[in-house]
Amino acid sequence: MGISARIEAAVAEAIRLGQGRGSDAPGRLAAALEYSVTPGGARIRPTILLSVAMACGDDRPALSDAAAVALELIHCASLVHDDLPAFDDADMRRGKPTVHKAYGEPLAVLAGDSLIVLAFEVLARAAGDQPQRALQLVRVLAQRTGMPGGICAGQAWESEAHVNLGAYHRAKTGALFIAATQMGALAAGQEAEPWEELGARIGEAFQVADDLKDALLSAQEIGKPAGQDAAHGRPNAVAQLGVQGAVRHLKDILGGAIASIPSCPGEALLAQMVRAYAEKMTPVDLQAKVAGVR
Amino acid sequence: MGISARIEAAVAEAIRLGQGRGSDAPGRLAAALEYSVTPGGARIRPTILLSVAMACGDDRPALSDAAAVALELIHCASLVHDDLPAFDDADMRRGKPTVHKAYGEPLAVLAGDSLIVLAFEVLARAAGDQPQRALQLVRVLAQRTGMPGGICAGQAWESEAHVNLGAYHRAKTGALFIAATQMGALAAGQEAEPWEELGARIGEAFQVADDLKDALLSAQEIGKPAGQDAAHGRPNAVAQLGVQGAVRHLKDILGGAIASIPSCPGEALLAQMVRAYAEKMTPVDLQAKVAGVR
Repeated sequence: MGISARIEAAVAEAIRLGQGRGSDAPGRLAAALEYSVTPGGARIRPTILLSVAMACGDDRPALSDAAAVALELIHCASLVHDDLPAFDDADMRRGKPTVHKAYGEPLAVLAGDSLIVLAFEVLARAAGDQPQRALQLVRVLAQRTGMPGGICAGQAWESEAHVNLGAYHRAKTGALFIAATQMGALAAGQEAEPWEELGARIGEAFQVADDLKDALLSAQEIGKPAGQDAAHGRPNAVAQLGVQGAVRHLKDILGGAIASIPSCPGEALLAQMVRAYAEKMTPVDLQAKVAGVR
Repeated sequence: MGISARIEAAVAEAIRLGQGRGSDAPGRLAAALEYSVTPGGARIRPTILLSVAMACGDDRPALSDAAAVALELIHCASLVHDDLPAFDDADMRRGKPTVHKAYGEPLAVLAGDSLIVLAFEVLARAAGDQPQRALQLVRVLAQRTGMPGGICAGQAWESEAHVNLGAYHRAKTGALFIAATQMGALAAGQEAEPWEELGARIGEAFQVADDLKDALLSAQEIGKPAGQDAAHGRPNAVAQLGVQGAVRHLKDILGGAIASIPSCPGEALLAQMVRAYAEKMTPVDLQAKVAGVR
């Protein structure tokens, strides 16, 4: 099974677990869970996770799949909560109404909460004969999700009068990419620590690519409101470096990412994945726009 | 150390972990975490958890403490989110402004999210030489927190056109009491299943006691708005059975709870705890009011 098929199968199975089909579950929240995770977007984080796991031998594929889906559930939960009126107040996401627009604000809060909980449940259930690996996965996922350094912390920096920009970017965007590389390694029985730099650099690259998209593409092209960084006065690489500067910076970061890949059986394949991922991050229409402003 | 001192020490340590003192954490969310869990209220759920663990021998006290604090963090997270404008829109809780009133809605959402994540992190960190126990604790806590049968499901029933009342009460109030008895047993190396009934019955008793308080006491006396059930048209034992009927029902449930205690070294002490807990649930001023309407 290819990476994408593994991810979609694992996500569908996790949602069935959360919906508890056949049990007395509230139907609208059950529906909102599925709505929150579909359609899949690029599933970038779990793809990176499984790529690293496979580069490390992937000797417990069920645990790798659980790690991938747990990470994706956390990512989806963060999107649902970030779209709420108290944050971005977004009407559209991935080309359809946001969860609170479709199901109301109470169920959007609860869908996010339930997805967070489900992520940890999925990891605990997949432990099999590797309880220590599962516990390490819970720890890393928690560390990169909550406080003091996870995506919750990243989002919370936007409520501070004085923002530590480095900490803000590391937590807001970097955290789940670091989780991706570290959890992939852990699921396959490797140490987490040597994989932090690769995740951090991919996260930086993603941030710059996102800044480029936000500045250059229309809302229809990216499936959510555009120009949000300028509207909310958020820091943005394009504002700092200009379009060409940001594109150069993106290439430098990805070069560094490839150089940072720890020695492992699948090292060459992984470098190829990062290159392919770089292409994905700058889709054809964006490349055309960059050429247009050249 | 007594149960109450164990709980407060463990809660304080968990919050320090979440605040990551010395790290680059956003200060207002760090403060909101502490604000969300203090002052402690009765800490009823972790008290029950530690009582059961001690009745079962409490051979890994650090793991029992972690289980107790994880459960309390989930409870506090649920209060923070339930108080949000989209739900109860409450201004006061435990005699002080609610988290969103004190820190704003974004940080209230994030404080709840962070506390949920911290709960699972605390469990994973406390595994020590008992990884299987820690993983079971993660599973039970997740099951009783999220979907399809945890407190998130309970809250979500309030967004359904047709409510399954049994499922609603089991999930909304019962779930964390079942988690309390089951996690106490698991932390001490016992099976979870025989402890479900005790938790469920304590949960029912708590619901009836809460209904009595909501109907009879003033906002000042309970530290949050009173008469909320009538105002929101929520099911309430006093509306169904009258005050005297509800009091009789409460006594019956607690009798059943004591009868359901599984055989264990600390059985007698545990029965005493449930009786003491019954006294606590009907405080002196409530007893006086009940006598007044007799």
